[in-house]
Amino acid sequence: MDQQLNNVPHRRYNILTGEWILVSPHRTNRPWQGKTEDKHLEKKATYDPGCYLCPGNTRASGETNPDYKEPYTFINDFSSLLPETNAISLNKGLLQAASEKGICKVVCFSPDHSLTLPLMDIEDITKVVKMWKKEYAELGAKEDINYIQIFENKGSIMGCSNPHPHGQIWSQSSIPTEINKKSLYFKQYWDENKSSLLGDYLDQELELKERILEENKHFVALIPYWAIWPFEAMIIPKRHIQHIGQLTSEEDVAYAEIIKKLTIKYDNLFETSFPYSSGIHQSPTDGKKYPEWHFHMSFYPPLLRSATVKKFMVGYEMFAGPQRDITAEQAAERLNELPEIHYLKQ
Amino acid sequence: MDQQLNNVPHRRYNILTGEWILVSPHRTNRPWQGKTEDKHLEKKATYDPGCYLCPGNTRASGETNPDYKEPYTFINDFSSLLPETNAISLNKGLLQAASEKGICKVVCFSPDHSLTLPLMDIEDITKVVKMWKKEYAELGAKEDINYIQIFENKGSIMGCSNPHPHGQIWSQSSIPTEINKKSLYFKQYWDENKSSLLGDYLDQELELKERILEENKHFVALIPYWAIWPFEAMIIPKRHIQHIGQLTSEEDVAYAEIIKKLTIKYDNLFETSFPYSSGIHQSPTDGKKYPEWHFHMSFYPPLLRSATVKKFMVGYEMFAGPQRDITAEQAAERLNELPEIHYLKQ
Ligand SMILES: O=P(O)(O)O[C@H]1O[C@H](CO)[C@@H](O)[C@H](O)[C@H]1O
Ligand SMILES: O=P(O)(O)O[C@H]1O[C@H](CO)[C@@H](O)[C@H](O)[C@H]1O
Repeated sequence: MDQQLNNVPHRRYNILTGEWILVSPHRTNRPWQGKTEDKHLEKKATYDPGCYLCPGNTRASGETNPDYKEPYTFINDFSSLLPETNAISLNKGLLQAASEKGICKVVCFSPDHSLTLPLMDIEDITKVVKMWKKEYAELGAKEDINYIQIFENKGSIMGCSNPHPHGQIWSQSSIPTEINKKSLYFKQYWDENKSSLLGDYLDQELELKERILEENKHFVALIPYWAIWPFEAMIIPKRHIQHIGQLTSEEDVAYAEIIKKLTIKYDNLFETSFPYSSGIHQSPTDGKKYPEWHFHMSFYPPLLRSATVKKFMVGYEMFAGPQRDITAEQAAERLNELPEIHYLKQ
Repeated sequence: MDQQLNNVPHRRYNILTGEWILVSPHRTNRPWQGKTEDKHLEKKATYDPGCYLCPGNTRASGETNPDYKEPYTFINDFSSLLPETNAISLNKGLLQAASEKGICKVVCFSPDHSLTLPLMDIEDITKVVKMWKKEYAELGAKEDINYIQIFENKGSIMGCSNPHPHGQIWSQSSIPTEINKKSLYFKQYWDENKSSLLGDYLDQELELKERILEENKHFVALIPYWAIWPFEAMIIPKRHIQHIGQLTSEEDVAYAEIIKKLTIKYDNLFETSFPYSSGIHQSPTDGKKYPEWHFHMSFYPPLLRSATVKKFMVGYEMFAGPQRDITAEQAAERLNELPEIHYLKQ
């Protein structure tokens, strides 16, 4: 990397959203007297009778979970979106609103309450990948579902209200803001270059080798040049595919493997169950063709200095734009120095 | 309001950014078993010998604060932006970066460590407004400063590391993402209608009277139709002016008054010192004319249900777009039911 950027306040451009991020590497040594988080280290039991996601337990809705052994999905008992919403469009001068249809699901990753992705076997993470693919296909086939957002909120600091390993899928009729942004930049590049914007970026990163975290036959995990969160990372398939439905069985396993490797590094960084929100961005399911899209998964972890000090995206960040202290290269270096084996298993 | 929207998942359009927000009013009764925050209620002393913002104390830089009696500003000891940054532009294939110049300042609102804006006298808040105007003029006159972001992070939950009443000003050479978005929509509307987008919106709100919180001769505080945060609010001047530098002395006082009234409501909502990030959006200082701009101040408070339960903007929100549970109208109703006098002074 141009070493100059290591000491100089600068902006970096996000090629997928057209937005800039402010980087202040000289500010890393700022002391922190502000809020600290609790470090949750209690060992969890494999089964918790009070957990509404454990097999055999009864949920808030009154329904009982089956005695599931594989990843298990169900409709969210407190869905933000509902399938039977009546169509309303309310436009009154400068006030514009429209009803929205959708289906929200919960995906239990494992029956074992005590696990998290980095602690699961590759074989079991592969089952989660296959479940995501199944849901993407089934939800995407529905007429009213035009985008499917697969995500995980991990850790109470990320608003997760239940430590049982699980993620969510919110699928809906309109295409969300963040997807529209990326569609625009993918499309523009595709029209000009007839190649994948993210694929070409990946080639450049593989050559430079400054921000690569993990690599296997089919996937790369890296810190994107324009990362916002201190240890933000992205998993990119080497093959130019639009959505997870196109993954081969071999790629499913490679995807599971790289998720495991990345999240082990995360846990090892501060020897804690590393919180994050992760999400998959992929092509819409509105029936149109999106040859320009290149699916990828991002991880947004809030921690900055330790298991208890996070980065706050507040005043300046909310009103002007994102800001970070350590550079993407420094974050990659930190993660690359860590052991590949989970600290609880060393 | 169209009462239909009270029970139906829907999207609302933000006329200033072109982005949509998902509203799920049917979901308000969801139970919360997740993270709760500490309720900070200790009474603060008017002077704290350990506080680096109190008059007469020594800061991290080794400098000593004067024995100030009025609002006091100084250059941030840990500035994210520096004035003497050498110009670097690093474009290498798909990696794009550029150095950024700027000046970061801290604004102490009062010498009294124990105060917050809602507890200050209108006369003293007016002095803060005048200080913002002075800084906007002085920083804006510098050649390298093209945008000035005035903001406050209030409360440790908003990343504020010192409870002394203060805000910040980050000024810089490039125009931040959020400002560019709004410039676009202001300009488009101005070109088509030769009137202020926000002014026309304000007229509509004043007629509907469904989201108005406070009003005086020169300002209105309201919950914008497209609010993201549960109790987000906006202060808008009735006169179509581009920046705070154009406020008359009478308007300075009216502005201070409405800030006080709004923040008292906030504190009264959960009988706590209500956390938020607030910020002023106004025209850039790059020497160009921005007749379309209409300055306004927004408040983004994280609390949702009580002094200890906040709204998490996480997985879906980060990857798709913002989501809220209570409607803007319900939030306005809640705030409007509260007493006008601060709960500590009742
Ligand atoms: O400058 P402070 O108060 O130390 O820091 C706070 O505000 C800044 C500007 O919004 C943020 O970048 C920091 O994450 C936050 O902790
Ligand atoms: O659905 P949950 O896990 O109860 O809720 C969590 O994730 C949602 C989707 O990102 C957010 O809207 C909530 O604020 C958060 O607490």
